[in-house]
Amino acid sequence: MNAPTGGPLSRARLLTSPSVGPSVVRELERITGRPAGSTDRVGPGEPFVYVGDVLPEALRTPRLLWFHSVNAGTDALLSAGTWPEGALLTRTVGRMGERIAQYALGWVLAECQSVAEHTAQHARAEWRRLPSELAAGRTAVVHGTGRIGSTVAGLLRACGVRTIGVGRTPRAAPAGFDRMVLAGTAEETTALAEARWVVSTLPLTGSTQRYFGAARFTAMRGATFINVGRGATVDMAALRDALHGGTVRRAVLDVLPDEPAGPDDPAWRLPHTVITSHSSGITADEDVVTDFAACWEALTEGHAPALAVDTRRGY
Amino acid sequence: MNAPTGGPLSRARLLTSPSVGPSVVRELERITGRPAGSTDRVGPGEPFVYVGDVLPEALRTPRLLWFHSVNAGTDALLSAGTWPEGALLTRTVGRMGERIAQYALGWVLAECQSVAEHTAQHARAEWRRLPSELAAGRTAVVHGTGRIGSTVAGLLRACGVRTIGVGRTPRAAPAGFDRMVLAGTAEETTALAEARWVVSTLPLTGSTQRYFGAARFTAMRGATFINVGRGATVDMAALRDALHGGTVRRAVLDVLPDEPAGPDDPAWRLPHTVITSHSSGITADEDVVTDFAACWEALTEGHAPALAVDTRRGY
Repeated sequence: MNAPTGGPLSRARLLTSPSVGPSVVRELERITGRPAGSTDRVGPGEPFVYVGDVLPEALRTPRLLWFHSVNAGTDALLSAGTWPEGALLTRTVGRMGERIAQYALGWVLAECQSVAEHTAQHARAEWRRLPSELAAGRTAVVHGTGRIGSTVAGLLRACGVRTIGVGRTPRAAPAGFDRMVLAGTAEETTALAEARWVVSTLPLTGSTQRYFGAARFTAMRGATFINVGRGATVDMAALRDALHGGTVRRAVLDVLPDEPAGPDDPAWRLPHTVITSHSSGITADEDVVTDFAACWEALTEGHAPALAVDTRRGY
Repeated sequence: MNAPTGGPLSRARLLTSPSVGPSVVRELERITGRPAGSTDRVGPGEPFVYVGDVLPEALRTPRLLWFHSVNAGTDALLSAGTWPEGALLTRTVGRMGERIAQYALGWVLAECQSVAEHTAQHARAEWRRLPSELAAGRTAVVHGTGRIGSTVAGLLRACGVRTIGVGRTPRAAPAGFDRMVLAGTAEETTALAEARWVVSTLPLTGSTQRYFGAARFTAMRGATFINVGRGATVDMAALRDALHGGTVRRAVLDVLPDEPAGPDDPAWRLPHTVITSHSSGITADEDVVTDFAACWEALTEGHAPALAVDTRRGY
């Protein structure tokens, strides 16, 4: 990781992308003590710091000292072009762990409580008792056991759900998890068969492309699949088959391989599925400002920011 | 409280109402060591124990030693006629606290996560990001701070919600509550104004009839009202006005003053409301058996069952 400090950072221009709103820009100006400019006004040879969502091709130059992403996911940013040699990349996580955990638990309980069915009955003025399902005592298998996966598991566990984490290397169970199993082992297969819910918080990396394929989907025994990670970790044809076959009971997909999904995207026609338009981990303006300020403080004190992204691993 | 023990209980007939299924009847026979009969077969003068939902008028006699209700709410049972002098009343609570807490949290998070809106967008194949609301840091005011209210509050608090209990007598905050306020005081009015959610778990008693009227509904400032207690605790005209006026943002009503609601009930036409057909605290067969067994054990050991109802107070 590269941490620009001292001279270059103190002289760097502050640039923001058009998607960054005026109230955030004012806060960034206050934190850095310099006016913000737009991307077309950086002089030749001037180093700059960029805050935004995407990095225009023209700015993929060695003069980019530091890019602060207003989003938590940086795979699109990294795969859109060559990352400038030596440029620091930091990201906004904000209260994303909490937000995504409340999304996951919200959809788990909405299913248990038949929210959609009650809403439909109400629209018909139909009084009919529907049994609810107690989440307590059931099992959730969570893929991705980092900060977000751990927060998701912790909140599910508060409702009495047993939580099993799936990881790629042997390790002790992180906070929120009752136990861990290794990905790709018979133990994972057993866990998937027990699962009432399978939640993915996986980032998209070389090794998670189509991680959820026929092998995992047919190992399930009626689990509901919730994806708050990345769409391309899922083989959509295998998911469709599993939804038709019933090994996957329902799917709640916040993410898709191709976003935004057009009206003709076949994903809309998957049975027993709700697609939620990548809404689970929205970062609020206050999150961007808070996380940028923490990175700025670390850099001016000569430390590597905790929110730095390893641009080779992708997270 | 009356606790029939010894002679009369050992000789008593076991009767069950038609609503009690055969697998539960078999378990009751096993627990009590006697065959179960139906209501028309009790001989004159014979003492009996009755397990069911309603108590037929013909059985409201001093020969009724003990009525075990398969439900938690016993107000309908008590108000349907004179309670036989000396008869013990016990009820099934089961995992009702947990069930109702998951119902309340489920609807809280469904609102935060725009479950209904996402479901509607999905039906239109429309990709549109919707902001979510973080429940953490917001305030819930819970009326009724007994076992169920306390469980509801504890689960909301696991999602970072601040929880204020409203009680009728000064007391320390029960488990799950950050603090308590006294009903009918300025403190309660302030709490209602801060509340993002107002949850009622109140039983129906003489003092809770129309407890939620214009005074409480106009003290709110855009709270969502969730009623998992009893319908007659709400003045429905005052709720309608508050929903139109916006002091109540939304209502989730599991209970209504008149149940079941017919298709012409005006409650179906309240704005921003979902009615869920008294589904929040359904007792499962296993709950009835477990709670009856606990009462039976207490009685045969000469103790008062913990699930006994004070038939004068009504809970």
